[in-house]
Amino acid sequence: MPVLKGNAIVGQSGGPTAAINATLSGVIRGCCDAAKNGTIGTVYGMKNGIDGLINGKYIDLSYMWEDEDQLSLLENTPAAALGSCRRKLPDPNGDSDVYPKLIELFKKLDIRYFFYIGGNDSMDTAAKLDVYAKRVGYDMRVMGVPKTVDNDLCETDHTPGFGSAAKYIATTVTEVIADCAVYDIPAVTVIEIMGRDTGWLTSAAGAGAAVGNPIPDLIYFPEKVFDLEKLYSDVEKALAKHPNVVIAVSEGIRFADGSFVGEDKSGAVDVFGHKQLSGAAKVVASAIKAKFGCKTRGIELNTVQRCANHIASLTDLKESVKIGSEAVKSAVNGASGCTVVYKRVSDEPYEVRYETADVRLIANRVKYLPDSFINADENGITEDCLKYLLPLMAGETSPTYERGIIKHFTFR
Amino acid sequence: MPVLKGNAIVGQSGGPTAAINATLSGVIRGCCDAAKNGTIGTVYGMKNGIDGLINGKYIDLSYMWEDEDQLSLLENTPAAALGSCRRKLPDPNGDSDVYPKLIELFKKLDIRYFFYIGGNDSMDTAAKLDVYAKRVGYDMRVMGVPKTVDNDLCETDHTPGFGSAAKYIATTVTEVIADCAVYDIPAVTVIEIMGRDTGWLTSAAGAGAAVGNPIPDLIYFPEKVFDLEKLYSDVEKALAKHPNVVIAVSEGIRFADGSFVGEDKSGAVDVFGHKQLSGAAKVVASAIKAKFGCKTRGIELNTVQRCANHIASLTDLKESVKIGSEAVKSAVNGASGCTVVYKRVSDEPYEVRYETADVRLIANRVKYLPDSFINADENGITEDCLKYLLPLMAGETSPTYERGIIKHFTFR
Repeated sequence: MPVLKGNAIVGQSGGPTAAINATLSGVIRGCCDAAKNGTIGTVYGMKNGIDGLINGKYIDLSYMWEDEDQLSLLENTPAAALGSCRRKLPDPNGDSDVYPKLIELFKKLDIRYFFYIGGNDSMDTAAKLDVYAKRVGYDMRVMGVPKTVDNDLCETDHTPGFGSAAKYIATTVTEVIADCAVYDIPAVTVIEIMGRDTGWLTSAAGAGAAVGNPIPDLIYFPEKVFDLEKLYSDVEKALAKHPNVVIAVSEGIRFADGSFVGEDKSGAVDVFGHKQLSGAAKVVASAIKAKFGCKTRGIELNTVQRCANHIASLTDLKESVKIGSEAVKSAVNGASGCTVVYKRVSDEPYEVRYETADVRLIANRVKYLPDSFINADENGITEDCLKYLLPLMAGETSPTYERGIIKHFTFR
Repeated sequence: MPVLKGNAIVGQSGGPTAAINATLSGVIRGCCDAAKNGTIGTVYGMKNGIDGLINGKYIDLSYMWEDEDQLSLLENTPAAALGSCRRKLPDPNGDSDVYPKLIELFKKLDIRYFFYIGGNDSMDTAAKLDVYAKRVGYDMRVMGVPKTVDNDLCETDHTPGFGSAAKYIATTVTEVIADCAVYDIPAVTVIEIMGRDTGWLTSAAGAGAAVGNPIPDLIYFPEKVFDLEKLYSDVEKALAKHPNVVIAVSEGIRFADGSFVGEDKSGAVDVFGHKQLSGAAKVVASAIKAKFGCKTRGIELNTVQRCANHIASLTDLKESVKIGSEAVKSAVNGASGCTVVYKRVSDEPYEVRYETADVRLIANRVKYLPDSFINADENGITEDCLKYLLPLMAGETSPTYERGIIKHFTFR
């Protein structure tokens, strides 16, 4: 593969995570290394992903090269420092004017390396751009770099951002269980965790079992049908054991007819005439209250779980940096239309290898929680699941605080 | 004051906080010191507060004396390790059989020191017990030790537990603002913070301003009337400045007629026939969506904010230990029917003194956020508020993690 000299551009896309900026830092670090042997000249950052780039919005990031303090602060900052978007590119074989506009900009800036950090929709962007660049003979290496708290990307053992969200969930669930345990009267608390299609994040609610912590009595996943009679039977058994029952549910749990549990079917409207969206936790808590008459509470972890960088997993942040710099290495070595993925070599000691995979194998596909990770009663996790989860949550980070207040990175 | 020799008992009462176990540790440490000169023999712990004690439930805690590892783990464990209750004692001048039962138990165990860690309702318990013991001539020193995330106790500069909840809120709000900032389209996020009667915790949402962090565009407190037209005008101005507007509201904000904003007035019932309790964040988000048509989201921090020991304030935990041991010291020196309070000596350098106050001055009373802490537009905090808040949130703790999972204390 001939050496391709030129500049690089990096963008962030899709929903925020605690680790997506760590990957951005990894890409900047990788470009800096490639600059040392003259392959990459400078590195630009798209503002608000491909959407901003189409509108000519970008900044020069090379001022951060070897600024260890700023890179480290960036790695300990949640969300997407460059901004994000949810724009889907049109068919690269069609006649959209979006691609010529982008190629014109690439030529102007001499962009030969394109890095796009995102989930499966963003991998679709990378795949299409690669197709178009090849179609028109513009020599450019396009790399997708995975991220998503949902952990639902195919081809990779796990996704950057998942371990940190999992650590936040395991920590918070442990704290909520301690909170629930203080009164000696029957009460059921339902915690709703992200995951519209898959139960990866919800499985982390049970991770404490590996070190003997109390965990939720019941955990329900979108991969299994949610049935109210089964719930009542499960809760009855749990309440017979102790008064403070805690349940973790995925936001995406569904009834047998395929409808979401969290979707209100009562037709109730609020005081402003809007249809209520109850959320799975509130609906499950309400059902339990109606059945058992005990006190119930629904807790929605909401977006807090995806941006809680202050309790990030050190393993996740380190890997998220590394996958960014590996993407640059692979591109410099000739890869395009690819993404870098984690291949787990062993659980204990935990070891991953970085490999490349065709970006089209990730785009628009979903990886579900395997059956072997869900217990036979379909209301908890297995030893196999714990073995998978634990290494991803290992290690604590050192966020920066000033006068007790957390500090985040911002571009100058 | 003559030396009173005998045993001690300690209990926890009311809602959990991140620091109430630190105070328990402080009481145990104080009793251990008093045991060295022979004043206190042993220290017992009530299971589930006065409610458990009435039913004869207690444990001997002296096995923990000088077990630094266990005391430190206890200090870094949220909620109430001994369990809690919400039992209100009857009139101590009446003829309830509760008091004679308690005195009988005190005599059996030779209890001469009674420590009750709790909020204003729990101070009522301490006050009544003190009255009854004096009435029947049982020589016992009764001390209340304050705690509450709400920070609404009179006589004290602040309450143990508040600084940690405030630090969690300031951190989480900063992270949510980063999360909200990624997209370049108008959206309003409403974060609901605890505080049914007072805006202390909600004020912490603005604490980041002291170090130049972005803070919520608007903050609303229960101390001020919440008005929809004022909200619309405030939001319109905020949206004119940037697309991602973040609002912090106290759960206790009220309309001019005194009704809670979070109380659903539509009469809507859920699929199980129950009246919906929307919560202030959802109602405010819904109102903004109806008015501006933009994307909105309501986030309820819920009980997570009061039990998030993993991001506790070091200042709060240290003070919470110290106030427990100071309570023992004061009791040994003759105080009864009292509580220990913080008196702030200065903001910078921050310094507090520990003093005693009559427990009846705290019981059943509420301290509101002063007007000087709320801005003229009644939608944000002032410099005075920042000066008050910052020292309480200073310093980071070192929670114990095992394989990446947080570990908590449990009694053996």
